[in-house]
Amino acid sequence: MSILEDTLAAIEVPDSNAALEAQVRLDSLTKPRGSLGYLEEIVRRYAALRRDPAANFGRGAIAVFVADHGVSAAGVSAYPKAVTVEMLRNIGAGGAAISVLARRFGYELIVTDVGVETDTSAKPFKGVRYRRVANGTANFLEGPAMTLAQAREAIEIGIEAARRAAAAGITLLGIGEMGIANSTSAAAILAAVTGLEPARLAGRGTGIDDKALAHKIQVIEAALRRHRASLDDGLSMLAAIGGLEIAAMAGVCLGAAAARLPVVVDGFIATAAVAAAEKIRRGIHEHLFFSHRSAEGGHGLALQALDVRAMLDLDMRLGEGTGAAIAMSVIETALALFHEMATFSSAGVSEKIE
Amino acid sequence: MSILEDTLAAIEVPDSNAALEAQVRLDSLTKPRGSLGYLEEIVRRYAALRRDPAANFGRGAIAVFVADHGVSAAGVSAYPKAVTVEMLRNIGAGGAAISVLARRFGYELIVTDVGVETDTSAKPFKGVRYRRVANGTANFLEGPAMTLAQAREAIEIGIEAARRAAAAGITLLGIGEMGIANSTSAAAILAAVTGLEPARLAGRGTGIDDKALAHKIQVIEAALRRHRASLDDGLSMLAAIGGLEIAAMAGVCLGAAAARLPVVVDGFIATAAVAAAEKIRRGIHEHLFFSHRSAEGGHGLALQALDVRAMLDLDMRLGEGTGAAIAMSVIETALALFHEMATFSSAGVSEKIE
Repeated sequence: MSILEDTLAAIEVPDSNAALEAQVRLDSLTKPRGSLGYLEEIVRRYAALRRDPAANFGRGAIAVFVADHGVSAAGVSAYPKAVTVEMLRNIGAGGAAISVLARRFGYELIVTDVGVETDTSAKPFKGVRYRRVANGTANFLEGPAMTLAQAREAIEIGIEAARRAAAAGITLLGIGEMGIANSTSAAAILAAVTGLEPARLAGRGTGIDDKALAHKIQVIEAALRRHRASLDDGLSMLAAIGGLEIAAMAGVCLGAAAARLPVVVDGFIATAAVAAAEKIRRGIHEHLFFSHRSAEGGHGLALQALDVRAMLDLDMRLGEGTGAAIAMSVIETALALFHEMATFSSAGVSEKIE
Repeated sequence: MSILEDTLAAIEVPDSNAALEAQVRLDSLTKPRGSLGYLEEIVRRYAALRRDPAANFGRGAIAVFVADHGVSAAGVSAYPKAVTVEMLRNIGAGGAAISVLARRFGYELIVTDVGVETDTSAKPFKGVRYRRVANGTANFLEGPAMTLAQAREAIEIGIEAARRAAAAGITLLGIGEMGIANSTSAAAILAAVTGLEPARLAGRGTGIDDKALAHKIQVIEAALRRHRASLDDGLSMLAAIGGLEIAAMAGVCLGAAAARLPVVVDGFIATAAVAAAEKIRRGIHEHLFFSHRSAEGGHGLALQALDVRAMLDLDMRLGEGTGAAIAMSVIETALALFHEMATFSSAGVSEKIE
């Protein structure tokens, strides 16, 4: 079997008994039952995904995948394509938003070039891993963004990243991305998977104006028409209209589920990766935390269509895993409460009048 | 002048120039303009309240006020009154939810007994300050909860706490509370200030059933009828239907505004304190951060009526300052991004195509 098929075969349903056991302990802590609200759901979910009623926490890490997009030639972004490689360097060097957050929260930052147009691997940037599948994708207005073999390779890079993280003691893994024009690819994927109209999903990305937004919507509609025959299958859809970083994030979701490693999904682009992974393995969203509702395009609608709840709504639309990082700190906080609060009996606090 | 009048005279409007200067720096950081969303609003607001365009951060602290309520005799809570003093001990000893959060985030925890029924000051609990105004309030179904002098004393204890915190280098102060039956007092205050019906505001508190909730609503309606003549003025309203911990939190809001110390408001009970403070000084909400929308009663409606936005919505309803603590960590995160991210010029990243 290939890495992908091997991974799919290893995914089990989350352990609901571990969640129930965690709830028993939650109810023994010195607080009214259920009063920690969604923080209690986080603990239950983490316990179920780790198959560990004690919900032990090891370490957190954030995997950021960076790649270029051929569709940027269609003028769908407010920034030049050169920004992708410039931000790859900036993220690795510690100056990007996600660099600051990873440092602050003590999370390992795993930055991977999976296909930036400019190849810097001969003189590698600090803090960057190179697993380049191509010098960016092709323009999907003119043909498929990548070959099926490339899509599979990118997915398997993601699976490998999840496996390595789990083996290294990571117990919570955020996913994020950077790639000029990738919100166009993401909106196309979300439209293909949810059936929502591109006009309801496409957003301003890094800050395009009304005219450019109208053009971006037309680009997405044209791509969906052109590649209609490839959209029913997850792998062929990623090859047709995806991005290398999106395919890699989809791979992380699959690989982490197989490794009992809970993943925290960032915003709009990462959600498109989940949608693609869901096409490959139905129910994969049960293995994930959704960090925040992004202000980008129809992210809220996409989350609704996937029937998932986002933890935070801070109007962020930056990507890079920034929303995931903040949500991970909330998950760690929920686990700290679970592990460190006193119980009614240990603290000598009276229980509810029944 | 008294401490209260002195404080009111010292409150200035927030410094909008500091906010504008902070925005200039935000726009120079390596991210699309505005893409940090509400985190950017947090930075602007913090800069304006501190009157500091550099938005420097010193230390965080959480002030938790604990007191008993005479109205608990009316059977409005799911827990016995003894829980107040038991939780006072538990919070100070490190076993309560807020104790865990303060430790985790490195915030000083300032726990103050402002009127618990059982006086433990002769053999003081670890980690508790004693500023007892009374052995709890009187039952406001039978008369005012406290005298005007007591309400003023509790407010001034809060003002003093804010002053001490500011003088000690605290630059962000969360407020929280504990006191069996205090959601009844809080709902009454919020009804009096917002004009919303008690039935839309009252919640299940620590977990009462439908029958007890209907009774709680009747209790609030009766209290509002009885004390109608005292509800137009903030001080007399607090004396009539308030709580000592609620008055103290109102005092913190006023004292902190005078000291340029941003306050982070917890949930339902703390919002009632803000509503009371707003009656004493219109516009005080401009000096505050609202941490979360609590699942308790009509907290969302109350926030709407005050025309403020809550940062988080995690369905929490625990009090103690727990929502405030989590929101404070988000504020610190926003400030870290502001201080530590690279600029376009320092990182050599291309700017937007204009």
